[in-house]
Amino acid sequence: MKEKDLMKQAFVLAKKGRTLTGLNPMVGAILLKSNEIIGKGFHREYGGPHAEVNAIQDAESRGISVNGATLITSLEPCCHNNKKTPPCTNIIISKGIKEVYYGSIDMNPKVKGRGIAKLKSSNIKTVFIDNQKNNDELNRGFLKITEKKLPYVTLKICMSLDGMIFNDKSSSSLIGDLKQLRHSNNLRANYDSILVGVETILADNPKLTYRGLGSKSLKQPRPIVLDSLLRTPLDSKIIKLKNDPIIFTKLDEDSKKSVKLKKLGCTIIKLNKLEPRMVLKSLVKNNLQTVMVEGGGSIFSSFLKSNSYDELVLYYSSIFIGNSGLNLGHSLDREYKLKKNSTKIKKIGNSTMMVFKR
Amino acid sequence: MKEKDLMKQAFVLAKKGRTLTGLNPMVGAILLKSNEIIGKGFHREYGGPHAEVNAIQDAESRGISVNGATLITSLEPCCHNNKKTPPCTNIIISKGIKEVYYGSIDMNPKVKGRGIAKLKSSNIKTVFIDNQKNNDELNRGFLKITEKKLPYVTLKICMSLDGMIFNDKSSSSLIGDLKQLRHSNNLRANYDSILVGVETILADNPKLTYRGLGSKSLKQPRPIVLDSLLRTPLDSKIIKLKNDPIIFTKLDEDSKKSVKLKKLGCTIIKLNKLEPRMVLKSLVKNNLQTVMVEGGGSIFSSFLKSNSYDELVLYYSSIFIGNSGLNLGHSLDREYKLKKNSTKIKKIGNSTMMVFKR
Repeated sequence: MKEKDLMKQAFVLAKKGRTLTGLNPMVGAILLKSNEIIGKGFHREYGGPHAEVNAIQDAESRGISVNGATLITSLEPCCHNNKKTPPCTNIIISKGIKEVYYGSIDMNPKVKGRGIAKLKSSNIKTVFIDNQKNNDELNRGFLKITEKKLPYVTLKICMSLDGMIFNDKSSSSLIGDLKQLRHSNNLRANYDSILVGVETILADNPKLTYRGLGSKSLKQPRPIVLDSLLRTPLDSKIIKLKNDPIIFTKLDEDSKKSVKLKKLGCTIIKLNKLEPRMVLKSLVKNNLQTVMVEGGGSIFSSFLKSNSYDELVLYYSSIFIGNSGLNLGHSLDREYKLKKNSTKIKKIGNSTMMVFKR
Repeated sequence: MKEKDLMKQAFVLAKKGRTLTGLNPMVGAILLKSNEIIGKGFHREYGGPHAEVNAIQDAESRGISVNGATLITSLEPCCHNNKKTPPCTNIIISKGIKEVYYGSIDMNPKVKGRGIAKLKSSNIKTVFIDNQKNNDELNRGFLKITEKKLPYVTLKICMSLDGMIFNDKSSSSLIGDLKQLRHSNNLRANYDSILVGVETILADNPKLTYRGLGSKSLKQPRPIVLDSLLRTPLDSKIIKLKNDPIIFTKLDEDSKKSVKLKKLGCTIIKLNKLEPRMVLKSLVKNNLQTVMVEGGGSIFSSFLKSNSYDELVLYYSSIFIGNSGLNLGHSLDREYKLKKNSTKIKKIGNSTMMVFKR
């Protein structure tokens, strides 16, 4: 069925909006007329036009009328007012589109089927091609915010087989091999932001960038640092790379170091306590819908024990570090039982990856 | 093909010899005449008749002649002298067996194809049904002894996700769930002996028995304890159960405690150092071909770092124990890199099992 294939394409388009849609979902749309694709669009800017409108504009910009066309969209078109853009349903109706294939229901309580109802009442044929799971996975950040006003959080860490995250005696901070590192780096492409503690910045001076396929044309995730005393060096890579880092601190936002960091492009946010929940709420205020927490151990533990996560990704490398290692449990002051079993186990290079969902 | 199915049955028979064959391989044999099974046998006692002979005796005990019969045997028949029983090839020839289907070559340098050659030279038809891998897996202990004069050693341990093997704050020593425990217990059915340190005896007072399917009709694996100062309590379960425990100690074999333990059925072996390699050599002297090392941590570490193992079985339960836990790496005084990746990863109950081979 042709529409099924086009729906897949719509989802590919939707993904192009990653890190760009702010608190909005990622959506892709395709317009079809006389069996030819006449327009394509995706939601590419928070507050900017929706995917459907971009697809219409794409067709019209080349002088093609969308009257009588078929719309294939990954998500139910919106129908509500009082937001940055007018309802897509009205535009679809006024432009004379005759059919709408949609891949998922918009779980935003202001829409949730009402968009489709509106189209039906205007005698537009609507067909559901069930991709709800795909959409919910793609837009897990948007959904989490809709439901809990918190971003989707993944805790990721690489350990030795004896649970060590660091080796005192080794000059390298590498525990996994290159395949594991690449896999781990590829995960970053799925997140708006990457969070670490300042100790990680001081020890490793990481870039916190996605460096996989297509990375050059992507907007990089925002680096987030929990840094009570603003010890992040002014020449650290995350600052030099200018990917709009956010630094959470207990110091005043007009402190000397704070002013310097702001001049270098950092957003400085003062919190009385750098608690996971407070930090996550603040990320939503900064239009971030997903965050991957990459350590170190005490950051991992604080997010874990406060249940401030949706997913755990654990890599176990084929090595025992022994008693010169720093154990992941070192900073965890009580037992923490996972309620669900792993959803995935897989060999990655010399490592075994386990994924757990809450 | 009928012979293929019968070969499978021969391997099922062979397994019945587990813990009984001493330093000999496990072997199963079936005799077929006019398309009917007329005899079955397996090697069931170190120094006792081989599987082929037992199958012949099985037929003859019921008044059936094996003249003209077909023999299906899991392992190449032996052909060498100067051992506890006469060569099977001679018996096969003299009894007038006309065909031999064999599942594997005997890697004992005194046989290794010579058994088959001997049969061929007597105009017996021989057919190889390749089950070499099955046989090598089944008789991995026998093979290890043939090659290295050491038993096949598996190190098994259950940990939390942060690598803890024990929780100071918990009254239970259980880390995995019941499914994991059952799986772990089932592994014992594949070993001649189960080795632990005396600390495990003192802390857990384990039975070290296999308690799965068919356990009542099986000879239990021998408990092996590394116990420098003979602290094993006289009323501990491994002594009460009378499964022929062996206790390795640095104390003299005629020390008071030693004498008491011997009276209760223990074998006491004095070594100047309880080093893994010395212990393993001594197990071979005691006719044991496989051993599963079940901890605790320092025993695991000493076997690991001295490369005294063939296989690692690691279970990771879905729990973080945190800083009240005892870490597996605690007693490992240097890094240990595994040379090969895991050969198997699998979910078992609430745990993930990883298997590594050397």
